[in-house]
Amino acid sequence: MPMQLPYVQTRFLDLPGSFPLRNGAVVEKVRIAYEQYGTPSPEKDNVILLFHALSGSQHAYGYNPDVPGIGALWKPENHEGWWNSIIGPGKPLDTDRFCIICANYLGGCYGTTGPASPSPADGLPYGSRFPHVEVADQARLQALLLDSLGIERVHLVGPSVGGLIALSLACQFPERVKSFISIGSGYRASIEHRLSLFEQILAIELDPDFRDGDYYQGPFPKKGLAFARIIGHKSFVYQEGLEQRARKEVGGQSGMLAWLRPTRSTQSYMLHQGTKFAERFDANSYLRIADMWAEFDIRDHAPEGTFSAALEGFRRETIPALIFSINTDCCFRPAEQQDFADQMEKAGIPAEFHTIISTKGHDSFLLEPELYAEPIRRILG
Amino acid sequence: MPMQLPYVQTRFLDLPGSFPLRNGAVVEKVRIAYEQYGTPSPEKDNVILLFHALSGSQHAYGYNPDVPGIGALWKPENHEGWWNSIIGPGKPLDTDRFCIICANYLGGCYGTTGPASPSPADGLPYGSRFPHVEVADQARLQALLLDSLGIERVHLVGPSVGGLIALSLACQFPERVKSFISIGSGYRASIEHRLSLFEQILAIELDPDFRDGDYYQGPFPKKGLAFARIIGHKSFVYQEGLEQRARKEVGGQSGMLAWLRPTRSTQSYMLHQGTKFAERFDANSYLRIADMWAEFDIRDHAPEGTFSAALEGFRRETIPALIFSINTDCCFRPAEQQDFADQMEKAGIPAEFHTIISTKGHDSFLLEPELYAEPIRRILG
Repeated sequence: MPMQLPYVQTRFLDLPGSFPLRNGAVVEKVRIAYEQYGTPSPEKDNVILLFHALSGSQHAYGYNPDVPGIGALWKPENHEGWWNSIIGPGKPLDTDRFCIICANYLGGCYGTTGPASPSPADGLPYGSRFPHVEVADQARLQALLLDSLGIERVHLVGPSVGGLIALSLACQFPERVKSFISIGSGYRASIEHRLSLFEQILAIELDPDFRDGDYYQGPFPKKGLAFARIIGHKSFVYQEGLEQRARKEVGGQSGMLAWLRPTRSTQSYMLHQGTKFAERFDANSYLRIADMWAEFDIRDHAPEGTFSAALEGFRRETIPALIFSINTDCCFRPAEQQDFADQMEKAGIPAEFHTIISTKGHDSFLLEPELYAEPIRRILG
Repeated sequence: MPMQLPYVQTRFLDLPGSFPLRNGAVVEKVRIAYEQYGTPSPEKDNVILLFHALSGSQHAYGYNPDVPGIGALWKPENHEGWWNSIIGPGKPLDTDRFCIICANYLGGCYGTTGPASPSPADGLPYGSRFPHVEVADQARLQALLLDSLGIERVHLVGPSVGGLIALSLACQFPERVKSFISIGSGYRASIEHRLSLFEQILAIELDPDFRDGDYYQGPFPKKGLAFARIIGHKSFVYQEGLEQRARKEVGGQSGMLAWLRPTRSTQSYMLHQGTKFAERFDANSYLRIADMWAEFDIRDHAPEGTFSAALEGFRRETIPALIFSINTDCCFRPAEQQDFADQMEKAGIPAEFHTIISTKGHDSFLLEPELYAEPIRRILG
């Protein structure tokens, strides 16, 4: 553990009553796992609500070697916060001035109620019984978390999939939003996202150990989950630089292949990434979050089905917006984000649009904090 | 069967002796399945050698309801030639003037020796024993086919993966090539190809019915093969137009999914494409050809490892070259093909470069023959 990182612990909040989803399903006794960095002001008006990515967790900052109740999924690579580079004293998300809160998503596997949690009906894991969840549900749940903590208004910071939930929150509860920062994200799943996420879901479903999601007595569908990660991972890196990167980071044999002997470092690298990931994530959680992403389009938030109508409250409250695009991003591609900015402009919402020039691809937001620092500091004020 | 299509039959040629591969493996008693349209001139100087795509066959033209010895794989969708639109009397590949020959690849499943063929050692299907094959091997085998037919020089026409083999033939045997036409193809597998093909190989390997390739006693790994096709298919279509196309072509339930109920027509469309394909192709053949493609880089044909050295004979023989790129191709992308044309120019090889403007993506070459007609007629003379 690096000396300068503070120990942090995940906190848990048990919501009273039940949580109804947009699709009609109901989840009883929702527990939310979240972390908090920095101190809330007496008025609680210095809060930043941060949203994690597809496979991320509530542990964005500091050092946390253990999360009670999540079993063996909390691996050493989870121990350091995923955004240590940008959170901390004097950092862009400045813990001396702000209180940053980050929560694990419903259906997740890092402490918030999810498919591996005991169902109140029989005490056994939900498994296949855990419902599909939508981005709008996640945003509403985070608003309930704020209610419980007595926090009225917040800054929203959402990288990647987190940006989708941040946008939904801003549209559903615009009066609670002080500013909106979207990083390598967008306002809808693109056709490319939907195709890739569909493949990722197939990869898990086709693992015979998946057994429709009722696998908690073991074995777990780790090959399918590893495969899903391999399919997804290629869009997070800068593909042109992948072979160089791969040569440095190759792992050993994965045991996934019989016919093909990997002759290229990228193949070994991908196998290594996939099999490592399958040790720290739950396949059912992956399905819930992949499906949530694939079905997202902010325009569905308004009966009219238009961007402008969905963001009416956003416009009315004149929420300051900051949108980062990464020029080498092959997950949320620059053209999609330019479209996002164009839609904002057409809807009469002033948004600051930055293109980050990087050779890191989508993962740039994790690796190059200095490129994001100045505009973030400015909008947070 | 459309009235104007002639009946054609697949012919078979049994090579004498054994066929050694570049990797040291040897295939005994190679049989080549090929078709021939039009009549060779007395001098046999009017021959066009045509190369099929990844999942194509020797049956490019006419109507062929049966190929002896390949079992149930020859489905109704195989009966009509895959390039009927461009071959025929008066067509760009004019059967009144030219004799067109198209052969199934080594390792294939439509009549040329492949993994399902009986091994001379024990008469049982090769299965996992069938070796990896390289593009250079395929090209050399096609040259042997020409030898057997007494044909010295040919025009080469290679769409998609076929263009890779055509290029290898032109580099290995430049004195036998009258002209070279590459359509939606290139000179190497891109990193994007390699990642996608690796996923397609994984999809098959992870199907428990694959059993390392020794599945011919059944059941066949159809789910894995269908999944591989789903992964590959998305790069053959124009993704932006996929949802419209999908609405018209959706099939019924595929039985591949339990957790996800397809809510989008693209998902049903992809499942339909995949499951249909798995009925007409052999997984072991798919692996051989996917692997061959993934490993291809024409620069490996020269010890120096440069484009210019690999194409030295091509330059020396001043082979007329025609390269088609498709502006919406997300398999062989326009930037890759521009690079191909640039490399040709740097190597001192005059090549005609055409960009087809289409909304059909990679599959344009199958669907819009009129866009290719004029330059093809011109180079064939």
